[in-house]
Amino acid sequence: MKHDFYIYNTLTRKEEQFVPLNPPNVGLYVCGPTVYDNPHLGHARGAINFDVLFRYLMHLGYKVRYVRNITDVGHLEDDVHDEGEDRIERRARLEKLEPMEIVQHYSNQYHRSMELLNVLPPSIEPRASGHIIEQQELVKKIIENGLAYVNGGSVYFDLEKYSKTHNYGRLSGRKLDELLSSTRELGGTHEKKSPLDFALWKKAGPEHIMQWPSEWSRGFPGWHVECSAMGMKYLGEKFDIHGGGMDLLFPHHECEIAQSTAALGGDHVKYWVHNNMINIKDQKMSKSLKNAITLEELFAGKHEALDKAYTPMTVRFFILQAHYRSTIDFSNEALQAAEKGLERLMNGMKALKKINPSARSTVNIRELRDSCYEAMNNDMNTAVAISRLFNGVRLINSLLSDKKEGIDKKDLDTLRGLYHTFVYDIFGLKNEEQLSSAADELNGELIKMLLALRLEAKNRGDFAVADKIRSQLNDLGIVVKDTKDGFEWDRK
Amino acid sequence: MKHDFYIYNTLTRKEEQFVPLNPPNVGLYVCGPTVYDNPHLGHARGAINFDVLFRYLMHLGYKVRYVRNITDVGHLEDDVHDEGEDRIERRARLEKLEPMEIVQHYSNQYHRSMELLNVLPPSIEPRASGHIIEQQELVKKIIENGLAYVNGGSVYFDLEKYSKTHNYGRLSGRKLDELLSSTRELGGTHEKKSPLDFALWKKAGPEHIMQWPSEWSRGFPGWHVECSAMGMKYLGEKFDIHGGGMDLLFPHHECEIAQSTAALGGDHVKYWVHNNMINIKDQKMSKSLKNAITLEELFAGKHEALDKAYTPMTVRFFILQAHYRSTIDFSNEALQAAEKGLERLMNGMKALKKINPSARSTVNIRELRDSCYEAMNNDMNTAVAISRLFNGVRLINSLLSDKKEGIDKKDLDTLRGLYHTFVYDIFGLKNEEQLSSAADELNGELIKMLLALRLEAKNRGDFAVADKIRSQLNDLGIVVKDTKDGFEWDRK
Repeated sequence: MKHDFYIYNTLTRKEEQFVPLNPPNVGLYVCGPTVYDNPHLGHARGAINFDVLFRYLMHLGYKVRYVRNITDVGHLEDDVHDEGEDRIERRARLEKLEPMEIVQHYSNQYHRSMELLNVLPPSIEPRASGHIIEQQELVKKIIENGLAYVNGGSVYFDLEKYSKTHNYGRLSGRKLDELLSSTRELGGTHEKKSPLDFALWKKAGPEHIMQWPSEWSRGFPGWHVECSAMGMKYLGEKFDIHGGGMDLLFPHHECEIAQSTAALGGDHVKYWVHNNMINIKDQKMSKSLKNAITLEELFAGKHEALDKAYTPMTVRFFILQAHYRSTIDFSNEALQAAEKGLERLMNGMKALKKINPSARSTVNIRELRDSCYEAMNNDMNTAVAISRLFNGVRLINSLLSDKKEGIDKKDLDTLRGLYHTFVYDIFGLKNEEQLSSAADELNGELIKMLLALRLEAKNRGDFAVADKIRSQLNDLGIVVKDTKDGFEWDRK
Repeated sequence: MKHDFYIYNTLTRKEEQFVPLNPPNVGLYVCGPTVYDNPHLGHARGAINFDVLFRYLMHLGYKVRYVRNITDVGHLEDDVHDEGEDRIERRARLEKLEPMEIVQHYSNQYHRSMELLNVLPPSIEPRASGHIIEQQELVKKIIENGLAYVNGGSVYFDLEKYSKTHNYGRLSGRKLDELLSSTRELGGTHEKKSPLDFALWKKAGPEHIMQWPSEWSRGFPGWHVECSAMGMKYLGEKFDIHGGGMDLLFPHHECEIAQSTAALGGDHVKYWVHNNMINIKDQKMSKSLKNAITLEELFAGKHEALDKAYTPMTVRFFILQAHYRSTIDFSNEALQAAEKGLERLMNGMKALKKINPSARSTVNIRELRDSCYEAMNNDMNTAVAISRLFNGVRLINSLLSDKKEGIDKKDLDTLRGLYHTFVYDIFGLKNEEQLSSAADELNGELIKMLLALRLEAKNRGDFAVADKIRSQLNDLGIVVKDTKDGFEWDRK
């Protein structure tokens, strides 16, 4: 099974069989958030897509070291031109706080949201500001290898020189000539030799609170350096998978490849994996475009674009119902469809518990099982895998209601195992209804009492009371079904 | 009010009026956990005591920057003699993981437990491994000031020289001569000049995974350096309060004072505040003594020393029922008493909601209020403040039941405000019963239906059914009281 997992490699533009460098270990690095604001739906998508990759690789039996960083320094407002204020410092200035207070606050927010979304914590979550020495060491290597230069206390990557021997742009497919012609001219006093050169170390102006000593100046690292340095530190000079959003493909990941190649002489990543974006009114949802809906707003239903609140599991399911490389269009209709879909799936899980085994199976469980794995092995297609699970729900319902269909003990165990594995372990979904179980248990007992009283009323001919009990329960969202053995109840 | 807050300063051995250096700002630094194992009851005590200090200072109107560190490097097995394996690395070796995976795992555990205990996250939570440069800078200053020496790639604090001009031991009250005579001899090959000298930077052996370049060697910082360096970085060269457990008083905090004094020429902390320990069978509860009960075990009731599970709020209340400078003896009886006490307090909160104002007050609310503040202002005596709140609960109950007692609207508002402020804001307690509110709401509706049916049964003379409803509810832990207006219900 595990040898059949194929994943799309952005670098080769092909679906490739996943073969780890050092099995059973797998190194996975994913670009995490820049923590200067509340996480939004776009952040949830990347985190959830790579959470499922992490879970699926573990399910396949790999020992995964998953590193997801926190960017807390060096990400400037204009990250294409290495200009403007540091995003964290800007927020600190506006909120009159120390930058690290901003970092702490928004990291906590991010972690809280991730927990609600049932995103597993990564194995290591390194911070850029906590790895200054490692970044400086990397910059030194690039200078030693002649591919960076120092000017005015800052260090820049020499892209022109690098391009003579290496193919800059091979990840994103961009051409250096075209990039150069579309880039604005540098001012006369600029320190860069070429407008495409990017900062590895920036000398800090007096307005920069976050600065550290170095042999070049008191300053701070360029944005792209952290991922190269921290990936190398925790996953080795060459590792299996580097992930991130498609919006990071250029320039961030392209620059990362250039840095690592310049320092180590070769590629540092085997598979580059990118998740697509969430669009809202045909635009990418992003903080900088000011069209983002935060996760807090989504869970509370408090945003003008929202008709209602959506639970974390609805949001998770909404994201998983699309393939990770397709765009997702935000709409209330789509979220409400996901809500219904999730309910259908969870009802299927409940129904699955009630099936009793027969002597012989009339259903083909292996086919269903294989079709789910096939979807996941085919570039982690959660959308197709979910549609297969929906087929299975139809099958489950017919096993419960149709007397001609039957399933033997072994097949039933397989079916239950399949749903448990896919729904809970791989997709990371939770049954939100079950969360408040103690109070729910009491509700069950109280409802039983009421139904017994209803039966008594019926028996003594007091149909008015019997009907009233049923209709009041109905008003409370409790649906009562008469069954052979007595009755069942459920929430609407 | 705020000028009356007195706190015991370990340095002067006196209760001192709290006067911040730079009002309304307050800088608070507390030594956090070394993250190489699950947090236990002892960790909860320090965190909760300083959480209440943090909350109380904010309540008094201060703008508090609360820094609590995470020690993830440099804390050796034998921390008194700077010897043995790094605690994190030892665990990493045993679990076959990268040290930072250990750090991430146990930091997550710690954060989860703190959240359950309703401990507010600090403003900044810096990690030792993330501040290597800052620690190196501090060590350089101490060397420049002639109070540290380099030997074999390591750097040691020159305690003998320091002691000639400074009073080493003034925090803990220990005398250098006595310390020297009770310390074991150094072996012939040891790098230290005197056995009391302590490491500021240690050259790393090949077995050390965590190491960084420095001008002295590839190595790692000594344990005491991190707190001096990070306190200075985020709170300035002199700040208001430094807290920690009494077990850290010597050598950790004593060495911190020596380092900061050697680097800066003077004291860096105005108030040193230490919480006492939790004892179990007359021994301090600690990981190293192998007698610790983890918080996970406490919350689940899974440990041979436990009669049952205790909720996070029971644990919190148990700790707050002692003054922070008294020892606490662990016992099931004491925890169960705390459980009952908390219930009594929370029942008081419920009863408070039901009081209706009278035309005139027969009770003295201002006296109660002042007595609560008096306890807190007197060295943060939560034990006394809680006993005052219990007095208030008696008063609340008499206001509800005794027709001779009355309270006017203004006093009632003051009383409600007082309890809200102390119970929720300052003590950080939560009503655990209310947590599953949606399901609880349904419980309430169903019980109302049952009670209406009981009334109908009574009215038609069917006392058997009426009694059965009451007794079944009773079996479910629901107590029904008849009142003037109909009935009330509560959980047993």
